[in-house]
Amino acid sequence: LHQDIRKRVFEQAKSALAPNHEKAAIVVRGGDSAQFNLYDSDCTKSVFRQEAYFLYLFGLVLPDCYGVLDLERKQTLLFVPKIEDDMQRWLGTRKNLSWYSERYLADHTYHTDQLAAQLAKRNIEHIHVLSGTNTDSGLPTPMVVNFPGMDKFRKHVDKLHPFLTEMRVIKTPMEVEYLRVCNRVSSQAHVYVMRHTHPGMNERHLEALFKAYTSYYGGARHLAYTAICASGANGAILHYGWAGNPNDQPLRSGESVVLDMGAEYNGYCTDLTRSFPINGKFTKQQRTVYEAVLDAHDQVIDALKPGVNYADMHRLAERVLVKHLMKMGILVKGTEHEMEEASMAAVFMPHGLGHFVGLLTHDVGGFPPGAEIDPMTAGPKRPDKPGLKWLRMHRVLKENMVLTVEPGLYFNDPTLDKALANPQQARYIDQKVLALYRGSGGVRIEDDVVITKDGVEVLSGALPVQPDDIEAVMKSNLKDREQRKLFD
Amino acid sequence: LHQDIRKRVFEQAKSALAPNHEKAAIVVRGGDSAQFNLYDSDCTKSVFRQEAYFLYLFGLVLPDCYGVLDLERKQTLLFVPKIEDDMQRWLGTRKNLSWYSERYLADHTYHTDQLAAQLAKRNIEHIHVLSGTNTDSGLPTPMVVNFPGMDKFRKHVDKLHPFLTEMRVIKTPMEVEYLRVCNRVSSQAHVYVMRHTHPGMNERHLEALFKAYTSYYGGARHLAYTAICASGANGAILHYGWAGNPNDQPLRSGESVVLDMGAEYNGYCTDLTRSFPINGKFTKQQRTVYEAVLDAHDQVIDALKPGVNYADMHRLAERVLVKHLMKMGILVKGTEHEMEEASMAAVFMPHGLGHFVGLLTHDVGGFPPGAEIDPMTAGPKRPDKPGLKWLRMHRVLKENMVLTVEPGLYFNDPTLDKALANPQQARYIDQKVLALYRGSGGVRIEDDVVITKDGVEVLSGALPVQPDDIEAVMKSNLKDREQRKLFD
Ligand SMILES: [Mn+2]
Ligand SMILES: [Mn+2]
Repeated sequence: LHQDIRKRVFEQAKSALAPNHEKAAIVVRGGDSAQFNLYDSDCTKSVFRQEAYFLYLFGLVLPDCYGVLDLERKQTLLFVPKIEDDMQRWLGTRKNLSWYSERYLADHTYHTDQLAAQLAKRNIEHIHVLSGTNTDSGLPTPMVVNFPGMDKFRKHVDKLHPFLTEMRVIKTPMEVEYLRVCNRVSSQAHVYVMRHTHPGMNERHLEALFKAYTSYYGGARHLAYTAICASGANGAILHYGWAGNPNDQPLRSGESVVLDMGAEYNGYCTDLTRSFPINGKFTKQQRTVYEAVLDAHDQVIDALKPGVNYADMHRLAERVLVKHLMKMGILVKGTEHEMEEASMAAVFMPHGLGHFVGLLTHDVGGFPPGAEIDPMTAGPKRPDKPGLKWLRMHRVLKENMVLTVEPGLYFNDPTLDKALANPQQARYIDQKVLALYRGSGGVRIEDDVVITKDGVEVLSGALPVQPDDIEAVMKSNLKDREQRKLFD
Repeated sequence: LHQDIRKRVFEQAKSALAPNHEKAAIVVRGGDSAQFNLYDSDCTKSVFRQEAYFLYLFGLVLPDCYGVLDLERKQTLLFVPKIEDDMQRWLGTRKNLSWYSERYLADHTYHTDQLAAQLAKRNIEHIHVLSGTNTDSGLPTPMVVNFPGMDKFRKHVDKLHPFLTEMRVIKTPMEVEYLRVCNRVSSQAHVYVMRHTHPGMNERHLEALFKAYTSYYGGARHLAYTAICASGANGAILHYGWAGNPNDQPLRSGESVVLDMGAEYNGYCTDLTRSFPINGKFTKQQRTVYEAVLDAHDQVIDALKPGVNYADMHRLAERVLVKHLMKMGILVKGTEHEMEEASMAAVFMPHGLGHFVGLLTHDVGGFPPGAEIDPMTAGPKRPDKPGLKWLRMHRVLKENMVLTVEPGLYFNDPTLDKALANPQQARYIDQKVLALYRGSGGVRIEDDVVITKDGVEVLSGALPVQPDDIEAVMKSNLKDREQRKLFD
């Protein structure tokens, strides 16, 4: 996988990065162990995970490394920390440097203190390093290249970040296969959770079951993101599951859950959501909301293909949702056009339709290179319009992009109250009908897709999405549900 | 729990911290959300965990908070971040400030931007803040108090860290009960793993099973530390399971495992290890090594009581192990005294006998207050002697201290090779006999105990430790082992 990626980098890097100079190399610093300290403890926050750009190029999950691509010789060099003699009883017998070269298909491996010397030996004059901003978090490139002797080389910071970011946007066939595997395991785990959900359990049990399945069967030591296991009204809280709402509420019959959970597989992420009734049977109202979201989901997936602008897909999903909200009698006294002008869809879906997925759950490259910069945020300029302004991905689709489609419909009190306080929006809302839905939480349906030559492949296609299919899955486990002792 | 702790702090703080001044307060800063960023991603490394001193005093698991104890009025103040209007759709409807006061039994709750103003309103002149070094990691206090307007108060950094550290060393009855619960869940989970271990599985399955059990039944979102699931020769690698050795090797019949795994329960940690044969039946050699470690374990537990110096317990364990190594014929041609002079035990147990357990797995206070400082490390001075110099805890035991007892015996190649290269040690080693054991890994037996009035209570007493009992547990699952499909 990573060798294949490096081959592509070598093919394109010379013209992209160094058209005017010879003797150039790419230098990337991997994640450091200190970042994983749990405060002043000598235990860690979590098992070390590699920084994504470094992992992308080198595939090595070890803290405190450097990687170099010698663009002149098209060679890969790894620089790994030296395990001191006395540390071997803690970390295992030191491996030969050639072990790394063989395992990670590098040309040479050295200790990190050799970095400047080896670059000099190769007469490298120009080094290209990563420097940029993540458009989702607004955070700068975390692993700043900084090694003794660096001042002897001419450092270039402009081109590498956009170049590698654009490479990461288009997945290689092997990357798609990794994402397919990851989606399959997470899909099966979602089914497993569905089959074991019943009233009387707690939200945290659903998180536990998902983790159990993906770690046991998927070898996933990490989730791709904090599990969102939101029942009842909590379903309307988009990032439920964080420390302030730690998936700790009881599951009640008659309510539904929004489960947004995905595992990581060799660094590649899945991002999947299903919503279903806790007792296994949709009420009429639950089904109405669900089918509205499903309609938006299906229409978007049908429309996806190369050449389509994803912002238009967001607008399509909004239009479908508005149509359903009008049919439900929640939105009234206006035309579809007027509703769109008033951003009514964003009151019920206060987030973007989707985002890239890859080595990050919210993968990089959501804004095209050269996108206009907003002086306020130093990030790319976003539209003003509620809804669209939350979209993480404003791109014309190309083959082998991998992204989520995740429309939702929520009854989120602060968002609704804000709309009701705004006469431009309140005029379209029937408060009596809305009251019937308030407190029921929400529905989100999220799948991961790869853009193909003329459409999409749904990577999470194994995960049931039709309400009848979900009911069938949940029914298959009903009879022995109560007596089953899961972990005997 | 935390109110009870604060009561004790209020009783003692005045004389310990502020004998010479009135108008004093303790100001503690909680953990911040930024520390949990996964590089530049907007996902996190793991779910937020609270900094231990803050958790100890306030019990609130929310990032970016401050807590204040007004020593004059004996009042507790919480300062929580304000959730902006638009963030409510992500994080849930903002809670009233009084919600925090009620839930966490504080006298008042404010937003963090009110910190200086509220201190001033109370005429606080002196603030005591945490500043010190963790003796296990060598890292400084992580959450430095730093708020706008702080310069108006007189800051004291000397006394709070040692004062609260000493408080944390002696657990309250409720803290012991939390640790008891945590130990019970982790003990049951170890039994569950034992019952489902068989050849052909992978180390990672054992980690997955332990996490599944503790999260499903124990509500444990976190392990207390990275799981060590080391099979065969890996058992001799003390921190196996880290990113460079990620618990990914197959389990082979005839080999044994060292499983060092513990869950966290409301911030309190467990630290438990069991070692057993993968096929459920000790070989004669495996039993010999196991019983040597068990003898050391039992003799230490029998000897523990208030007034005992834990360094003496480490020496006791070493003496027992040496006796067994002599019986096994690995150590020869010397008296026990000569073996001790040559630090032979440390060749086979290259770590300390145990450490405090509490809000950290390696809990604070391992060196008594006023311990001599080593100018090289800025930490407490440690003995030179191999073995003892690795001991994390040099204290005379008192009632309600909670600590681990974890003797081990390992065949770690770099450590053995180093000893064989040292004539002072090599002379006592029979290399032919040693060769029979090399490659077999190691055995560690670790329990958590609380010191009682005249002995100990083993908090992990529910976890079998006798080899016959372990075999019985593993046998109980043998017949249906192969056909069982764990997560159906
Ligand atoms: Mn998503
Ligand atoms: Mn331990």
